Amino acid sequence: MPEVFEQDYTLEQLQKVTKALNSGQFVQVRRMLAETAPCDTALLLESSPHKVRSMLWQLVDPDIQGDVLEELSEDVRLGIIAQMEPELIAAATEDMDDDDLGDVLRSLPDTVYQDVIGAMDSQDRERATQALSYKEHSAGALMSTDTVTIRPDVTLEVVFRYLRLKGELPDGTDELYVVDKDNCFLGTLPVNTLLTKSPDSMVRDLMDEDKETIPISMDESEVAQLFERHNWISAPVVDDNAHLLGRVTIDDVVDVIREDAEHSLLSMAGLEDEEDTFAPVLKSSQRRSIWLGINLLTALMAAFVASFFEGTLDILPILAVLNGIVPSMGGVAGSQTLTLVIRGIALGHINQTNQRFLMGKELAIGALNGVLWSVLIAGVIAVWQWDFTLGAVIAFAMFMNLVAAGIAGASIPIMLKRMNIDPALAGSVVLTTVTDIVGIFAFLGTATWLLV
Amino acid sequence: MPEVFEQDYTLEQLQKVTKALNSGQFVQVRRMLAETAPCDTALLLESSPHKVRSMLWQLVDPDIQGDVLEELSEDVRLGIIAQMEPELIAAATEDMDDDDLGDVLRSLPDTVYQDVIGAMDSQDRERATQALSYKEHSAGALMSTDTVTIRPDVTLEVVFRYLRLKGELPDGTDELYVVDKDNCFLGTLPVNTLLTKSPDSMVRDLMDEDKETIPISMDESEVAQLFERHNWISAPVVDDNAHLLGRVTIDDVVDVIREDAEHSLLSMAGLEDEEDTFAPVLKSSQRRSIWLGINLLTALMAAFVASFFEGTLDILPILAVLNGIVPSMGGVAGSQTLTLVIRGIALGHINQTNQRFLMGKELAIGALNGVLWSVLIAGVIAVWQWDFTLGAVIAFAMFMNLVAAGIAGASIPIMLKRMNIDPALAGSVVLTTVTDIVGIFAFLGTATWLLV
Repeated sequence: MPEVFEQDYTLEQLQKVTKALNSGQFVQVRRMLAETAPCDTALLLESSPHKVRSMLWQLVDPDIQGDVLEELSEDVRLGIIAQMEPELIAAATEDMDDDDLGDVLRSLPDTVYQDVIGAMDSQDRERATQALSYKEHSAGALMSTDTVTIRPDVTLEVVFRYLRLKGELPDGTDELYVVDKDNCFLGTLPVNTLLTKSPDSMVRDLMDEDKETIPISMDESEVAQLFERHNWISAPVVDDNAHLLGRVTIDDVVDVIREDAEHSLLSMAGLEDEEDTFAPVLKSSQRRSIWLGINLLTALMAAFVASFFEGTLDILPILAVLNGIVPSMGGVAGSQTLTLVIRGIALGHINQTNQRFLMGKELAIGALNGVLWSVLIAGVIAVWQWDFTLGAVIAFAMFMNLVAAGIAGASIPIMLKRMNIDPALAGSVVLTTVTDIVGIFAFLGTATWLLV
Repeated sequence: MPEVFEQDYTLEQLQKVTKALNSGQFVQVRRMLAETAPCDTALLLESSPHKVRSMLWQLVDPDIQGDVLEELSEDVRLGIIAQMEPELIAAATEDMDDDDLGDVLRSLPDTVYQDVIGAMDSQDRERATQALSYKEHSAGALMSTDTVTIRPDVTLEVVFRYLRLKGELPDGTDELYVVDKDNCFLGTLPVNTLLTKSPDSMVRDLMDEDKETIPISMDESEVAQLFERHNWISAPVVDDNAHLLGRVTIDDVVDVIREDAEHSLLSMAGLEDEEDTFAPVLKSSQRRSIWLGINLLTALMAAFVASFFEGTLDILPILAVLNGIVPSMGGVAGSQTLTLVIRGIALGHINQTNQRFLMGKELAIGALNGVLWSVLIAGVIAVWQWDFTLGAVIAFAMFMNLVAAGIAGASIPIMLKRMNIDPALAGSVVLTTVTDIVGIFAFLGTATWLLV
């Protein structure tokens, strides 16, 4: 079998581990896992069917379970935690970043949560309570409290001595935060400045006072947009009175960016965010059946609309043969507009100033494509069925539906967003309903009027 | 109108600028743009209809045009560059990072490219030739050659003196690269180590020799996966003989991550990567019509299949009314599987070891959902039409099509990937063709057999 997938290193690992696991060589698997970096173990777990995954997890050294949990996507992480003893969860969360700790604790059922908290020492418990006090998906839930702060009225030489005393800096420290005695944020001292300027300089004279701070309650997607736009590596988080509370780092922001970008893709197919490709069958089919149920309703609605025209269909069965074409084209054209507008909203490109322009543009595209495809389909049908009136009927319906698709595709997500409904989740159902019903009405209605 | 979009800062900006532009106050717009950060100007341009965009661009200070171009998404950037004089392009690229410079030059038509190169000074021309020598979408095209290198046999104190002499470090420098006299990569010295260890220590004793290097020809998506998995901020790029060539930084990787994640979303709707929401109507409709054309072909194919059963439809027009339901459900179920598998392939989670499991899982979900929805639809149809055989027919067709959708949704992207065809682009068309044809055959075929 040719190698078609990119993760060859991990693929090889996975095959070795799976083979060892299948032949019951647990000791060997445990040894192999001990030699694997936590991030690779995480990838291995995510790529494994859920049964293999639980077996593998039992063989991961408890000392690094916390590191592996941090690297897992949410859905997979929850599945694993659900099978762990409270004491082990408490132990695994010990070295976790605040943001991951908060995520893990938030996902626990109440009774398990109590047990986990009970198994923690008082210092961890305090950290846990702190991590839980911020709203999910806010900057607070994303930040780490591990920051390096300095005073403005010292020289760089003093800063150097302080850092050497500290002995270690948090990962991704690209700037130190300058605060006053009340811990109010004054500015940043980039590490690059520290490294290149004279040790006798004062922090006050070199610090960057223009660095934007992130309010603790800012939504994580907005934080991600700021990072992306400004190419930040880290940024300070402050409360309403400019007190420094912590810092957000790019590695956590990258996860938000990936999740946000995937959110549209998955939601538009009615799938959950962070959906686990290898979840158990029952769990997966439950989640997906909701979407199928909604779709059945819209399909029945379309059938109900078509049933008004049963008499026409009885007289002209060819209409039944062609009835799928117009709704299908409307659905595709509408999805294109919908996808583009949903992405535009997510990127912050669409707003009150330009939405009217956008609507006009999509209507124009719909009309243009409408003319093109209605002429073409009229020709095909006229030749295939040797019926020019039928060709004209389907051409008219096609044009109407493509225009409707353009308007619906642009306006539905904007309206849903205004009603605080996620356009990625609800948009395509509403759109398909519109393009199906307009398509059937336009085609069968015009046919009834002109051909019967 | 209520505020429903998040980018209020920019929204306000945009409204002010648009207002000033509309009333012809160009001097004022120029002044406003001069006060705006390049990244915000970029957002402003991306959120503007193309005509407003060209007008705005004329008013951006030529000195910062390069910075703004760097921040723009590809599609928008190309549109703007197409309208610029070669001399201005050459001037704008002067301060650009190597990777952006390469992107811009690659996108130019041959004649313009010659003019731009001709307008550059010899140093820039050399840099340009270098940037163009790497394959598009490779680590080479993503990297910057601006690195800080040190020797292993010096003390940290010497490094400090060297950095202070240099005066400035490249953005996002989180580690210095240790090389031998032939510029072979030996390891990294993290800035955090430099800051916290004794100045008398030797680089050799503190450097990290385990840092993975990135081969110059590695695909950018693979680079992004490494960064994401290892939480890197930067990473060294080397040639086949371990010579250090440059470094990739997280800010460019974030763009790759966003593009890769969006790629699936946009391709599945037949849209180009980085598609510009505010592109001119003609350009947009051309791009989209290809997809509509392909869809028309599949819709005609489905109609052709249905035409075999025209006799049956003539006898039982109710079949025409219900004919859309089964293909529609198959399409939705198949899309769910398809979306999940496409994402799994992109994340590197799916490989030879687990694809059989995945296929079995999706088949099981299809069967499970098939039983559920066929019982339900049988009930609905039996009650609505008071016809139990018809209910049984549609139930059977539904079951068959949901199972087919599960198998097709899982196997189509894997097969396409093996044939080196992008599953995100071609997957949904192939899938819809399968679910439409199986759905029509199963429903009308069974009906013809049992009811006529």
